[in-house]
Amino acid sequence: MDFSIEPLSPVPGLRERIDGKTKPPGSLGRIERLARQIGEIQRSTSPRLDQPQILIFAGDHGAARAGVSAYPQAVTWQMVDNFLAGGAAINVFARHNGLGITVVDAGVAHDFAARDGLIDAKVAPGTRNYVDEPAMTASERDIALASGAQIVRSIADQGCRVIGFGEMGIGNSAAASLLTHHLIGTPLADCVGRGTGLDDAGLARKRDILARASRRAALPLDADPLAVLAEFGGFEIAMLCGALLAGAERRLVLLIDGFIVTAALLVAARLFPAVCDYCVFSHRSAEPGHAAQLHALAATPLLDLGLRLGEGTGSALAWPLVRAAAALLDEMASFASAGVSERP
Amino acid sequence: MDFSIEPLSPVPGLRERIDGKTKPPGSLGRIERLARQIGEIQRSTSPRLDQPQILIFAGDHGAARAGVSAYPQAVTWQMVDNFLAGGAAINVFARHNGLGITVVDAGVAHDFAARDGLIDAKVAPGTRNYVDEPAMTASERDIALASGAQIVRSIADQGCRVIGFGEMGIGNSAAASLLTHHLIGTPLADCVGRGTGLDDAGLARKRDILARASRRAALPLDADPLAVLAEFGGFEIAMLCGALLAGAERRLVLLIDGFIVTAALLVAARLFPAVCDYCVFSHRSAEPGHAAQLHALAATPLLDLGLRLGEGTGSALAWPLVRAAAALLDEMASFASAGVSERP
Repeated sequence: MDFSIEPLSPVPGLRERIDGKTKPPGSLGRIERLARQIGEIQRSTSPRLDQPQILIFAGDHGAARAGVSAYPQAVTWQMVDNFLAGGAAINVFARHNGLGITVVDAGVAHDFAARDGLIDAKVAPGTRNYVDEPAMTASERDIALASGAQIVRSIADQGCRVIGFGEMGIGNSAAASLLTHHLIGTPLADCVGRGTGLDDAGLARKRDILARASRRAALPLDADPLAVLAEFGGFEIAMLCGALLAGAERRLVLLIDGFIVTAALLVAARLFPAVCDYCVFSHRSAEPGHAAQLHALAATPLLDLGLRLGEGTGSALAWPLVRAAAALLDEMASFASAGVSERP
Repeated sequence: MDFSIEPLSPVPGLRERIDGKTKPPGSLGRIERLARQIGEIQRSTSPRLDQPQILIFAGDHGAARAGVSAYPQAVTWQMVDNFLAGGAAINVFARHNGLGITVVDAGVAHDFAARDGLIDAKVAPGTRNYVDEPAMTASERDIALASGAQIVRSIADQGCRVIGFGEMGIGNSAAASLLTHHLIGTPLADCVGRGTGLDDAGLARKRDILARASRRAALPLDADPLAVLAEFGGFEIAMLCGALLAGAERRLVLLIDGFIVTAALLVAARLFPAVCDYCVFSHRSAEPGHAAQLHALAATPLLDLGLRLGEGTGSALAWPLVRAAAALLDEMASFASAGVSERP
């Protein structure tokens, strides 16, 4: 876990460049602040967001078989197949918004044949059930962190400057709830939601299972975030954590999706707080624990559309706003260049 | 003012088609409701949003010379030139999001040479100063309404199925404030904002000028919306009103921008309430009167980014969300087609 992540700092001339564009200063609101952030990430007054892509980490959870989800565990691999065939929501949104997609098997309980667009980084075919024992060993966790970092470095080496993060894993909102509770102290019940759509009885069962897992782990209040991660998993979340840290180190723009990706970010931010400087918070999820996460990170997301699907769909939907913000720096005329009168 | 606008009604099979896609029902939140609205607008379970474009109406305001704006009146024509040269914010956003742009001279105080992308529908070179007299005659208003409708019919005849509305006109947030006050009864002071960026003294002067105009007009509480429109203008707002009504009649998807476009919609909706069924509210403007307008229309916008630029920039930024909503209907796999397990 050795990352060198620099906090952002002002870029000379960037603010002036934004204010000189043909619009009243500040009139593009959040888009202007986003342009400044992107410029600072790239230390440039003309940032380029080349090769934007969605990176989806998929993994299975031992606790899924204990009943924390409305869907059977097989849906994880079936949805990976759906991503690779181009039929999921994330495929549709990415295609229309000019984003590539790469899927990573971080630990799905299924044997995939080698396929274009699928990276095999399987740590194990699913985590253990955290009700009974830690979801993963320290060694498995470290492999996952390193794999996530390595995948992002390799994508960055190919010229990519912005990654939209996504995930797939039946049961992973339950793991994210446990991580959130143990990392930021929000009461567990407030971190647990309906996930893919549990009914009231299902939600009560999920809360009960997670309370048992939390008691079993018996973590101290100031537990090491990496210990929390190993207790509850999953492999896709650990890999996301490593991926986010490597992305910040390489000064990529990181599009943060919903509840599960933000749980991975909570781990990353406890280790390297400056990672957040590189994050664009795509949307506010309908999953209730996301509000507590965003509050803990002092983050204001771009969109608030009641999404609760995951896959990176929020990242993909927010991407055109990010692209627009970067483009105004290079492509908008200035008052001087367009011959438009300024305020007297 | 003869428009035939049908309220939307359920399309058989549309809801089922959305719910059968490979995602938990409802998990795409607002995007799913948008997909249903678009399907109902086109009376289809496979709506097509062909030839999307931004339509910007520009006009000048007699009151601008009285000091209701931070910018000189010449900025209206200078920005029209900027739109035609491709250097404004709306050009950048439209280009990246796959939208065409058409600019309409509804009544700019400037002689433009004939230019590609500019429609000459000039009613007069600016309205009169509403502090002293009505901004336009009834006949000028009717010409503007008819021109706006005719322009949209012609665009629809060429195959366009979605229009993002925008405007340009130094002083037009002042006219929109007066329209909003007289159409929905919000106290005038609450309808008046800083527009392009007035300071405190400028805002006080704007409020004073508009209060005088409102007293001069001495309209009854239940004034005919068309009478209100003629009192305060502008030509671009009247043309927008006709354009919105024709768009709804032709069953187009209408992307509503900020405070000025919504003022035009208030007039249209008072005449034909069903026009709102065809509207997608792009964003919540930072101009304070917009909140009152949205409340009166019971509208929840897609974006809330602190924009206050106009030009259709909110429409252009919201368009990818609308495109995504329509695309999921045709392009997403169903549980059956993708072989993904449904909930037990």
